Amino acid sequence: MGIPSDAPIRLHRKFERGDRNKITDVQGVRVGQVTLQDGEINTGVTAVLPHCGNIFRDKVMAGCSVLNGFGKSIGLVQIQELGTIETPIVMTNTLSIGTAFTALTKYMLEQNEDIGVSTGTVNCLVTECNDGRLNDIRGLHVREEHVRQALDSASDDFEEGAVGAGTGMVCLGLKGGIGSASRKITADGGEYVIGALVMTNYGSAGNLVIDGIHYDTTKAAARTDETSGCAGETSGCAGESSGCAAGTTGAVSTGGEDKDRGSVIILIATDLPLSERQLTRVSKRAMIALARTGSYCGNGSGDIAITFTTANRCAHYSEKDILKYGMFFDENIDRVFEASVEAVEEALISSLYHAKTTEGVRGSRYMGLKDFLNMD
Amino acid sequence: MGIPSDAPIRLHRKFERGDRNKITDVQGVRVGQVTLQDGEINTGVTAVLPHCGNIFRDKVMAGCSVLNGFGKSIGLVQIQELGTIETPIVMTNTLSIGTAFTALTKYMLEQNEDIGVSTGTVNCLVTECNDGRLNDIRGLHVREEHVRQALDSASDDFEEGAVGAGTGMVCLGLKGGIGSASRKITADGGEYVIGALVMTNYGSAGNLVIDGIHYDTTKAAARTDETSGCAGETSGCAGESSGCAAGTTGAVSTGGEDKDRGSVIILIATDLPLSERQLTRVSKRAMIALARTGSYCGNGSGDIAITFTTANRCAHYSEKDILKYGMFFDENIDRVFEASVEAVEEALISSLYHAKTTEGVRGSRYMGLKDFLNMD
Amino acid sequence: MGIPSDAPIRLHRKFERGDRNKITDVQGVRVGQVTLQDGEINTGVTAVLPHCGNIFRDKVMAGCSVLNGFGKSIGLVQIQELGTIETPIVMTNTLSIGTAFTALTKYMLEQNEDIGVSTGTVNCLVTECNDGRLNDIRGLHVREEHVRQALDSASDDFEEGAVGAGTGMVCLGLKGGIGSASRKITADGGEYVIGALVMTNYGSAGNLVIDGIHYDTTKAAARTDETSGCAGETSGCAGESSGCAAGTTGAVSTGGEDKDRGSVIILIATDLPLSERQLTRVSKRAMIALARTGSYCGNGSGDIAITFTTANRCAHYSEKDILKYGMFFDENIDRVFEASVEAVEEALISSLYHAKTTEGVRGSRYMGLKDFLNMD
Amino acid sequence: MGIPSDAPIRLHRKFERGDRNKITDVQGVRVGQVTLQDGEINTGVTAVLPHCGNIFRDKVMAGCSVLNGFGKSIGLVQIQELGTIETPIVMTNTLSIGTAFTALTKYMLEQNEDIGVSTGTVNCLVTECNDGRLNDIRGLHVREEHVRQALDSASDDFEEGAVGAGTGMVCLGLKGGIGSASRKITADGGEYVIGALVMTNYGSAGNLVIDGIHYDTTKAAARTDETSGCAGETSGCAGESSGCAAGTTGAVSTGGEDKDRGSVIILIATDLPLSERQLTRVSKRAMIALARTGSYCGNGSGDIAITFTTANRCAHYSEKDILKYGMFFDENIDRVFEASVEAVEEALISSLYHAKTTEGVRGSRYMGLKDFLNMD
Repeated sequence: MGIPSDAPIRLHRKFERGDRNKITDVQGVRVGQVTLQDGEINTGVTAVLPHCGNIFRDKVMAGCSVLNGFGKSIGLVQIQELGTIETPIVMTNTLSIGTAFTALTKYMLEQNEDIGVSTGTVNCLVTECNDGRLNDIRGLHVREEHVRQALDSASDDFEEGAVGAGTGMVCLGLKGGIGSASRKITADGGEYVIGALVMTNYGSAGNLVIDGIHYDTTKAAARTDETSGCAGETSGCAGESSGCAAGTTGAVSTGGEDKDRGSVIILIATDLPLSERQLTRVSKRAMIALARTGSYCGNGSGDIAITFTTANRCAHYSEKDILKYGMFFDENIDRVFEASVEAVEEALISSLYHAKTTEGVRGSRYMGLKDFLNMD
Repeated sequence: MGIPSDAPIRLHRKFERGDRNKITDVQGVRVGQVTLQDGEINTGVTAVLPHCGNIFRDKVMAGCSVLNGFGKSIGLVQIQELGTIETPIVMTNTLSIGTAFTALTKYMLEQNEDIGVSTGTVNCLVTECNDGRLNDIRGLHVREEHVRQALDSASDDFEEGAVGAGTGMVCLGLKGGIGSASRKITADGGEYVIGALVMTNYGSAGNLVIDGIHYDTTKAAARTDETSGCAGETSGCAGESSGCAAGTTGAVSTGGEDKDRGSVIILIATDLPLSERQLTRVSKRAMIALARTGSYCGNGSGDIAITFTTANRCAHYSEKDILKYGMFFDENIDRVFEASVEAVEEALISSLYHAKTTEGVRGSRYMGLKDFLNMD
Repeated sequence: MGIPSDAPIRLHRKFERGDRNKITDVQGVRVGQVTLQDGEINTGVTAVLPHCGNIFRDKVMAGCSVLNGFGKSIGLVQIQELGTIETPIVMTNTLSIGTAFTALTKYMLEQNEDIGVSTGTVNCLVTECNDGRLNDIRGLHVREEHVRQALDSASDDFEEGAVGAGTGMVCLGLKGGIGSASRKITADGGEYVIGALVMTNYGSAGNLVIDGIHYDTTKAAARTDETSGCAGETSGCAGESSGCAAGTTGAVSTGGEDKDRGSVIILIATDLPLSERQLTRVSKRAMIALARTGSYCGNGSGDIAITFTTANRCAHYSEKDILKYGMFFDENIDRVFEASVEAVEEALISSLYHAKTTEGVRGSRYMGLKDFLNMD
Repeated sequence: MGIPSDAPIRLHRKFERGDRNKITDVQGVRVGQVTLQDGEINTGVTAVLPHCGNIFRDKVMAGCSVLNGFGKSIGLVQIQELGTIETPIVMTNTLSIGTAFTALTKYMLEQNEDIGVSTGTVNCLVTECNDGRLNDIRGLHVREEHVRQALDSASDDFEEGAVGAGTGMVCLGLKGGIGSASRKITADGGEYVIGALVMTNYGSAGNLVIDGIHYDTTKAAARTDETSGCAGETSGCAGESSGCAAGTTGAVSTGGEDKDRGSVIILIATDLPLSERQLTRVSKRAMIALARTGSYCGNGSGDIAITFTTANRCAHYSEKDILKYGMFFDENIDRVFEASVEAVEEALISSLYHAKTTEGVRGSRYMGLKDFLNMD
């Protein structure tokens, strides 16, 4: 749904929004989520299904960009080589991607008896951010059934904010989470949609920018244990105190709380026929949207953008060697870039806007953007 | 010099500027320029010398990023492989890079008798933007002696704006050109400098952003033949009129004049010890600075960022196999990223600020930012 | 141990072998393996520990190359960005990498209380090949305790052939598996070692080349169920039966045993000081070694090479911003490339040489190279 | 023509050769060459025209791979971004690429009045190797008219060996040059051609391999001035004489004729419909062919592979946003890879086979393969 029209913030906009203003405006795309929230547990799973059929048999063309590679996502290498996605995209916390991979593998095996027998294996796509600031991430609380549940519950409607895999995420000093938005563009007289879904866990407190206005969220990031920490990122607390740098006991050390670490996952879906090369180009522009919100792609942030199109399908089996695909005329692709940036930017801010203030592990607490805006 | 303190615009800033607020705050870096301006001729050469010694014998460590590859720069492939720059960096217009290459080659041969005889050849670094909107670029007006003159006149002081290779550049609907700025940061108690020099020729009219504020420069981009064109980029003039799309005769077709095409070259220099990998990471963040000024890295823009450090020198000849180099602790590198982004952002806007309104080929005319701000 | 001197095959060699002729000639490197073999189960785990200390606290510098990206390895993205490995490297079958990731995560969490609390997460490195031609890969028979057992049993001695993660692998029409070899080189008067460990599952039957001689292994790849179709990954049974695959005609599709699919993982370790860029360059040369054995990096093969050096350690915590690292003089690096290629080539052939003829799932059977050479 | 059937060497072959066994078996591809040979001058120009029409208006889809980036080729960045070639491909010596660029630019401007006026600029593709071992490369003997002459004389027949840009090249200790070969493959019942053209200047003396047999060419590389030092690029005379190079002691550095430096340019053309991604994949396999001939992609070798297809044309102007292109079914692409490797391998060896023994600058002399084979 993006930023509602009655919100106290707005974003510069050139392109018309899709009907739902969500990634599910791209026909066939569905999203399912499971939220795990219980005391020190703030985590979950978000699953994005590219279309309603058998995704392994009928892959979607895709591209991706590693904007900053401090990340652990599984499955990107094969997207880059083959230009396709052949499973749902599962998002969860960093340490749970193994579990998510296994669950997704079982889901795919169930649907495809040929995998590992008469055909090769399957490239499960699992992405992650580190929700350890609000979640007891070491507890590995995501279980295989949660992943399955997210996959099975996918629909064209879904919540944004502190839900699903976004439950424990932190972004730009505020509560991050899941956000979505979409834009319409025309091509050859037809109407097409570009939708974005993001999981936001990036950015330094104090750096939030909305439509060009800087917001100081450092005051919002006051956690109960704030005083004990070595909070100043630029101060390089490594150099400051042996306590921070030298190894951290079990005692709460909140050092570098405003380091730009934690990652962001950006999915862009469209029904426009774009080639793998073009889908990669679109992915790369996600960095522009990040920049508009105050990110500089900090060292510790795994910033990954993945784009797919439902318009170019790649069959797993083909009787023909030579196939036909659609491509966009590159000379006219600027509006695809620009609309994608707009959709991603709104999705990023929307994830903050819809996220409720959340308390979590070790007494941490992060404000939602709505609460933050109402703070004074 | 960047944006002067009495300017009607300002930029959000976290880091202290260098003394000159130019790339030449990095000790040893020098810049030489030749401006060619005569009727339909608006072009030139800008040369950046990484240090005062023999650059081939004593290379600087370097990295680069192709933010958008619609560009023709020479020499990037070897930077990516070997992590060094071994010549001055020459900037000029797109069609003149062959001439610049030859001139730079002769300059290097003169200084190094071993090249091509007892050692290999030399990787001349020549970058470009397309100044064809103001310059008779087909006339190939840059000659070898101009390149030599730029190299020979290099000093630690130099002009910004519509000078040197920036003479005919156009950026975000206004007159672009050469810009520079710098930032100081500390590391291990010492002070270091990050300097940027840019040649700006990117961006769509109407997209200029300064410190978060959108400026509509479309009214400033009024050229004499404006009426004949298919000016709307987003409108996809391909779809609008067969006249634009279908092929363009020799007759002046100004279609897509505000397409984001034309490129930007971004040089970042520092005296911080960064590894090749880290220099590449810094280069990549130039995209953040571009975004802050309203770019989305349009299809037709060759957006190239190159970073080098004077702190890590790589000798052409060595008696030893194993050498020692400095590297920054990645966990603390965020402030290097952020200061680099700030320096580049100011350099970009500074190129516009110092550029005078310029008239050129086919009756074109582009306003400088100062004139634009005074327009109303 | 590589190819023994009394073997009926030999390899062209320029460099002296290390003492063990294994990757463990690089001091501190240890290898642990668990072999799972029971009827239709032919799989396992191989773990490589870069050094004897806390790898997360004291990372090794690394680089990697995706020679062909039809692979699912976890952890490569961060190696490319940060140039370090911070966990043991775990190898297993493709569908079990989720389990291996979780087990490795738990192992790392146990050793490092700060992960996910006072510092970020950890980049677990898990690589894979598809052993589905001999193993009931859909059964997911690798369990977390197997991974742990491999890690805990690591030593500087280990077996080659159809063991560990290599138990079910198939290569160039023969039984593949784990292979290792090493080479010595001198630099600045000191002696250094380059060691390789490979998991081989690549190549088409009929393409095997040893020291320039072509061997036709198609006769060796005669599996008991050859007539029945859908047996192996590469059987291309797409063409044969509607049960296996949709949409293919009766046109004869012959087994596709000659498809080059299945992947190869190549680890190169050294105690030479190489930079991240140089380690990546070394990785890329693994393709040369593959070529020498008859590979052309087929479409379906995930060919991944990873190189690390124990000589450049990267502390997780540092009080200093600026650190010193060793680098090799690039002009002299050719012998590092060439010795690496030699070590990898021998490791590849060694994996075949030591692999015993193995029977597995669906009646499949692959000959070891020794048996193959004795066949006539 | 490749290796004639009566040659004393043969290559392992799976695929049928094209009618001419040259790159010009791909319909429309033409090659023109100018040979400059006079005393110390051994250089020239080779131009490859992808088709007979206006290449700027009607681009060919393309991909490329930088196998080793110690090279100076112009134009690769844009191929990677846009996936097209829009000019003839010009080859010459390293220091003459500026001249070649200017000449090619003028050629393109002549044919296209819109360039630099109503449309953008043009991405001239110029590749190079360092012929300084046989040619007075510092003399810059290639002039613009030579490039023009090569372009204008292009035909479907052309010579191989020490001709055109290959006149002064040295490869694997022997005389290198221009080589070509082709292979036929079928797809969907139709016949297609894959053609290769190479300029060979790579490899260490002593490393030549033909069909798996090692040849020691070090005896052939005995140059008349061997004792005098500084003769060749790879002579490593750095160690020998202060005149050549500073900073090296008297420690004997022996010639380094065994350094793999000098580069190789590999063009692959086809009439198969391949996507940009697939063309890049094919390019990458050129490394396999290099390996088969004894290369390990030495540090000092700029190893560049470029692939284009005449089957996918990309119009410079289009009335439509959405276009259709052909792509190969990746699961079946192995034979495209394998046939490409075969064509490139034969082209590489063919360049040696057809090259005559040549004497050049500073008394250097390199044997042709035919003479070498007859030496004993």
